[in-house]
Amino acid sequence: MLKRSPEFQIIHEFFEIQAATFNNDSVIVGIGDDCAVLCPTPQTQQVISVDTSIADRHFPADAPAFDIGYRALNVAVSDLAAMGATPTWFTLAISLNHHDRDWLKNFSKGLFTAAANADITLIGGDTTKVPVSAPLSITVQVHGEVCSGTALLRSQAQVGDTIYVSNTLGDAAAGLACYKNKLSHEPLLTAYLRPEPQIVLGQKLMGKAHSCVDISDGLLADLGHILERSHVSAEIDLSKIPLSKALLSYTDKTRALKLALSGGDDYQLLFTSALDNATLSLDNITAIGTIVDSSTAEHTAIHFINAADDFIETLTTAGFDHFHEPSV
Amino acid sequence: MLKRSPEFQIIHEFFEIQAATFNNDSVIVGIGDDCAVLCPTPQTQQVISVDTSIADRHFPADAPAFDIGYRALNVAVSDLAAMGATPTWFTLAISLNHHDRDWLKNFSKGLFTAAANADITLIGGDTTKVPVSAPLSITVQVHGEVCSGTALLRSQAQVGDTIYVSNTLGDAAAGLACYKNKLSHEPLLTAYLRPEPQIVLGQKLMGKAHSCVDISDGLLADLGHILERSHVSAEIDLSKIPLSKALLSYTDKTRALKLALSGGDDYQLLFTSALDNATLSLDNITAIGTIVDSSTAEHTAIHFINAADDFIETLTTAGFDHFHEPSV
Repeated sequence: MLKRSPEFQIIHEFFEIQAATFNNDSVIVGIGDDCAVLCPTPQTQQVISVDTSIADRHFPADAPAFDIGYRALNVAVSDLAAMGATPTWFTLAISLNHHDRDWLKNFSKGLFTAAANADITLIGGDTTKVPVSAPLSITVQVHGEVCSGTALLRSQAQVGDTIYVSNTLGDAAAGLACYKNKLSHEPLLTAYLRPEPQIVLGQKLMGKAHSCVDISDGLLADLGHILERSHVSAEIDLSKIPLSKALLSYTDKTRALKLALSGGDDYQLLFTSALDNATLSLDNITAIGTIVDSSTAEHTAIHFINAADDFIETLTTAGFDHFHEPSV
Repeated sequence: MLKRSPEFQIIHEFFEIQAATFNNDSVIVGIGDDCAVLCPTPQTQQVISVDTSIADRHFPADAPAFDIGYRALNVAVSDLAAMGATPTWFTLAISLNHHDRDWLKNFSKGLFTAAANADITLIGGDTTKVPVSAPLSITVQVHGEVCSGTALLRSQAQVGDTIYVSNTLGDAAAGLACYKNKLSHEPLLTAYLRPEPQIVLGQKLMGKAHSCVDISDGLLADLGHILERSHVSAEIDLSKIPLSKALLSYTDKTRALKLALSGGDDYQLLFTSALDNATLSLDNITAIGTIVDSSTAEHTAIHFINAADDFIETLTTAGFDHFHEPSV
């Protein structure tokens, strides 16, 4: 009898068996062959994104294993939400620096809980061992579908569009600070450790929003991506940024606003639309500004209104930079 | 003007610009949005595989950057070849522990040279920074297409099938040994550092082979995958294993045979077919054995013939195990 190597045993025990419980007719061959074989829905386009999460850079290495798995998938699924796509399949490439069965069990439980919520099926992966000195690394590639030609892009923002965000911002960044300082502030910790991709909202925006992005690097940085791709500028009303009660009970308004603008990790949607709030008729969205002309096609800028001048001066449009910011 | 962070600058300079030179009508949105948007060919199934290559585990960290890029993509494309698929798109998730522009330039040159050879287009990725103590990590996900229902699987080997391999085996494992010992043995080094996926052969096998796998972990380990999935056993004629002149000029026949059986990294195809060699009429394939009944559905085995008994005794069917074998 041919024995499974430890590598194959892990894949089988924690991933293959659970993946097989998902009933997905589009998966012709799942885990276990050289490749997965998949059947796209006719008349759809495939929407694909890949995200790597590194321990102590993108999440705390000592976070609960369930949350690490839950978060790694949802962070990637959030990119599908930003396109208005329906999630279909995902792959997992994980580099482990240890062989802890309990950790893997809880990690896979978190991963598959998020997968069930998003109705997305694991179709393959690669498990590799790295030295103990190397951080845990999780690369998730997510696949979704949109009816041909309907994907929400970054590049189609129009001058005059209203800029909207979903729910509240800054909670996740505050949650990370709470986690690092061992403060038990439940809604904020949950916002950071268990972000929820805005799949339903993204789908409702199709045909209504001109452009859309998910807020992973911070409102200003991600708005910057829309502006750059659409060759436009933006005016942001700082008095309109939605801040949660939990955030305002944790810190003062100035710091709360900074976290909301530059903190990142919220995974809310930022979108632009020619429609007003009443016409859109969507729950939990807030108009925070307007798309305006750029002085030149190459120069995009974010202008701020309705805040003290000295506060505006401290704002940077650089956003969260994985290469220069301190790690988590 | 919004500046690109160093992370985005790297993606733009070394990957986005080169990716854009590939002309692929199926790529509706490539690098630069939340997701890529892709248009599959109607009536096809999608074929997907993901491979992670870790420095000093899957390749020597000090190998030429060109070869690291070339190899990382080809190793993944080889899985498409094993399904008989036509390569279409790929993503790249790379974790860098340094910021060396020359290295990145040569790495991307190797990557895109392999991409041009396989006619596969980069559609997205994620660049992350890891601590200097962490190894370089490269995760490539490849996408291909097959006409619906035609993919070559591991699970369809039939009793009575002849077992074939392409080209010669063991060269790559010997090449790795040469590399580590600083021996200049060109064909062997090239076999290891620049493996060539057998895309054309895979496509020719469609409708002719019952099962197929690429040899990444060693002939015995990968044959084991076919046997396990197909619930059959195999008889291998050790006198038939194809060994190159380069390999036999490097080492004695016994060691050459061991490298061919267990060395891995050859990325040749191993397939089973009811057709004989003359009917298949393919270049550079060798019949090495036969698929036979398993004693029970659960117990698969590889039987060896035509070699000294003591040699057969030393053979293990465990193959190459990334968790237990010494690193490269």
